[in-house]
Order: sequence, then C-alpha cells, then structure tokens
Amino acid sequence: MRVGELSKRSGVPVATIKYYLREGLLPAGVLTSPNQAHYDDEHLRRLRLVRALVDVGGLSIAAVREVLAAVDTRDDSMHNKLGAVQEAISQPGSVELDPVAVEDVRAFLARHGEDECADVTDSNVTHMLASALSAARTVGHDHFQELLDPYLEGARLIARADLDYIARRGSPDDVIEAMVVGTLIGDAVLKAVRRLAHVQVSRTVIGDGSDD
Amino acid sequence: MRVGELSKRSGVPVATIKYYLREGLLPAGVLTSPNQAHYDDEHLRRLRLVRALVDVGGLSIAAVREVLAAVDTRDDSMHNKLGAVQEAISQPGSVELDPVAVEDVRAFLARHGEDECADVTDSNVTHMLASALSAARTVGHDHFQELLDPYLEGARLIARADLDYIARRGSPDDVIEAMVVGTLIGDAVLKAVRRLAHVQVSRTVIGDGSDD
Repeated sequence: MRVGELSKRSGVPVATIKYYLREGLLPAGVLTSPNQAHYDDEHLRRLRLVRALVDVGGLSIAAVREVLAAVDTRDDSMHNKLGAVQEAISQPGSVELDPVAVEDVRAFLARHGEDECADVTDSNVTHMLASALSAARTVGHDHFQELLDPYLEGARLIARADLDYIARRGSPDDVIEAMVVGTLIGDAVLKAVRRLAHVQVSRTVIGDGSDD
Repeated sequence: MRVGELSKRSGVPVATIKYYLREGLLPAGVLTSPNQAHYDDEHLRRLRLVRALVDVGGLSIAAVREVLAAVDTRDDSMHNKLGAVQEAISQPGSVELDPVAVEDVRAFLARHGEDECADVTDSNVTHMLASALSAARTVGHDHFQELLDPYLEGARLIARADLDYIARRGSPDDVIEAMVVGTLIGDAVLKAVRRLAHVQVSRTVIGDGSDD
C-alpha cells in the first residue's frame, strides 16, 4: 500500500508517519519509483504499536526507540519482551521512599516467590509499589501492606483475562501493542470497575439503609 | 488539646489548620480564653479526613465542603455516605464518549443488576468507565468490554479486602478517611500489583524462555 492508504488504515496522519520514518521508528518502505514507497502489513502493525506507545503510553520518541529495540531482539522470549515493554510504560513517580514501605515490598515479593535480593528500585514496577505504600504511610496509613495479598489474588484473575486478550493477536508487534493498550487503558477501566465493586460490596456488607 | 498539639498529632501545619477553621472545614474549638481554643479527638479525626480529601484526593475547598456536608447528613446510611464521597473523588476526565462504549457500559451494568435506566454520565464512576472504553475504541480496541466481567470478579475480591480495611475504623470520619485513602492510594498500589501479576501469569502462560 502507499503512504496514504497506510495513513487511512492506521488512523495516523501522513505527516506523523513521515516523522516516524525519519526518526527510524518505522522501517522505510520499498521504493517503487524515486518518489513513491510501498508499505505492507508489517508497517501497519509497527505503526499501531508506535502509536500505542506514544498516544496511550505517553512515551518519548527515545523511549519508543528503546522499546522497539527490545521487541526486535531476536534471541529473547516473548515473556522477556513483554517485561521490558511493561517496565518502559510504568513510571514510579517521585515520592520519597519510606524504608519500612521498602521492607514491606521486599517481604511481599519474597512471600510470592519473586527475587528478594534485588533492590526495589531496580524495577519500575516494584519501585511504583514502594512509592504507593510510602504515600500511604505519609498520611498515617501504616497497615496498607496488609492489602497486598488480597490485591494480588484479585489481580491474578484480572491478569489471566489480560493475557487471554493479548494472546489472541497474531504477530509479536500486535501482542505487544495489545499489552500496552491493555495495561494502560486497563488501569483506567479497572479504576472504575473497582469503584463499582466497592458500591456492590458495601451494599452487602454495610447495607444501603433499606433495613437500617 | 491546643492548636499546636492538634498540629503535631495530625501532621498538619498550624497555618493550614487556621485556614481550614476560617473556611469552615473544621468546627471551631471551645474557647478557654479569648485567645486560646481547645480541640478534641473529633477535631483530629475531621482534620485527618480533610487532609486526605485535599492532599490525596486533590479536591478543592468547595468540593471538600460538599463532601463534609454529605458526611454530616444525619439521616443517611453509611453506604450512601461512602457512595457520595466516592463520587466526589472520582473524576471521569474529558474523553469524548463513543456511543458503542456507552451501550457496552449499560449492558455490563444490566448484567450485574445495576440500574440500567440511568444515564452513564449521571455517575462519575460509570462515566469514567465509559470514557476508558471510548479511549480503547479510539485506538482500534473494539473488544475491550469483554474484559469487564473478569475485571469485576477480580475487583470484588479486592473490594472485600478494602471494605474490611475501612470497617476496622471506629468513627464515621475515620471510616470515610480510610475509604478516601484506600480508594486513591489503592489505585496506585493496584496498578503496581497488577503489573506483578502480569509478570507471574505471563511466566506461566507464555514461559520465560527456560524451555524455549
């Protein structure tokens, strides 16, 4: 397909496609004449992935380049590629870490068979968790870590549905694109669904006043 | 206690306490002399709630005043009060709603026995959910609503732990303060825990390359 068709099918403007081509985020098409290049479905898939990283993930062009390098590493498993992309789309914020919160995260990881020797800031995901527990301690909530095990239990159910969702995709680029969208838009969906669950569970546990 | 002690025990600076007193977010203390007022544990609890709403919830003073009015309504159940506060701390953002996403939310609510006649924008929580599904559709993810049921299943486990966590508090202000902190800091904790669950489930489902 020509660049106009690539734009139409991806929903990405031609000018943006040309920018991605210049930045090396999208491989060049096959020249069919000095001024015309031909693109295929591989380009379309890569373009969707780049758009998900930029528009949904909010990544910089440099960060997208790093993610694509990880995706394109031939001798690595899909599990490791997904892990590398997940790290890139998970920014821990700048909360000062509370040493007790850090210990709580280490204990939680050890309980669930994760590597307990690593520094929690080695991974953006565990750093993010330590930041959130530190924020809880700052406002006097010193027992928030007790919620971690039930949260993990619920999150495992959710993660299985997420993995089913992304595994339906055919190509590696599409799997990773679905992981990016599923993780980030999934955060927002889960935020809302959790609030609905609060209402439902509170109605059962506390009662809605109909029998007060 | 005097204002200095109230500040020390709450971690809120004296100037901020005086500002809250002027804005009517904190009831006046009992005057023990023309220049000195006495505060009790009720003030401390209310101050913690105000701080959670402002610092963790990011609410404006006007919004805090509305929440406190809901909390202080005598003839209402705790379930309804929690619902009112939850609405106040849940802002749906400004994504343009996709009519198909709105229908998906309505169908989801109907499946789970929630009021199906209401407009999804009547509640910030259902509006938030419709916004997230609309964002998914914008990037070509038209089947994201299939995740809603498993998400709710996982979120119910999490909500039960959340409700246990807040129900341990003694006074209504403390219950609501724990709900605010638990909901909002809980969002950040769950974001991280969900990513850990992704890694764990992906290791099982996809494999980490040790048997590739």
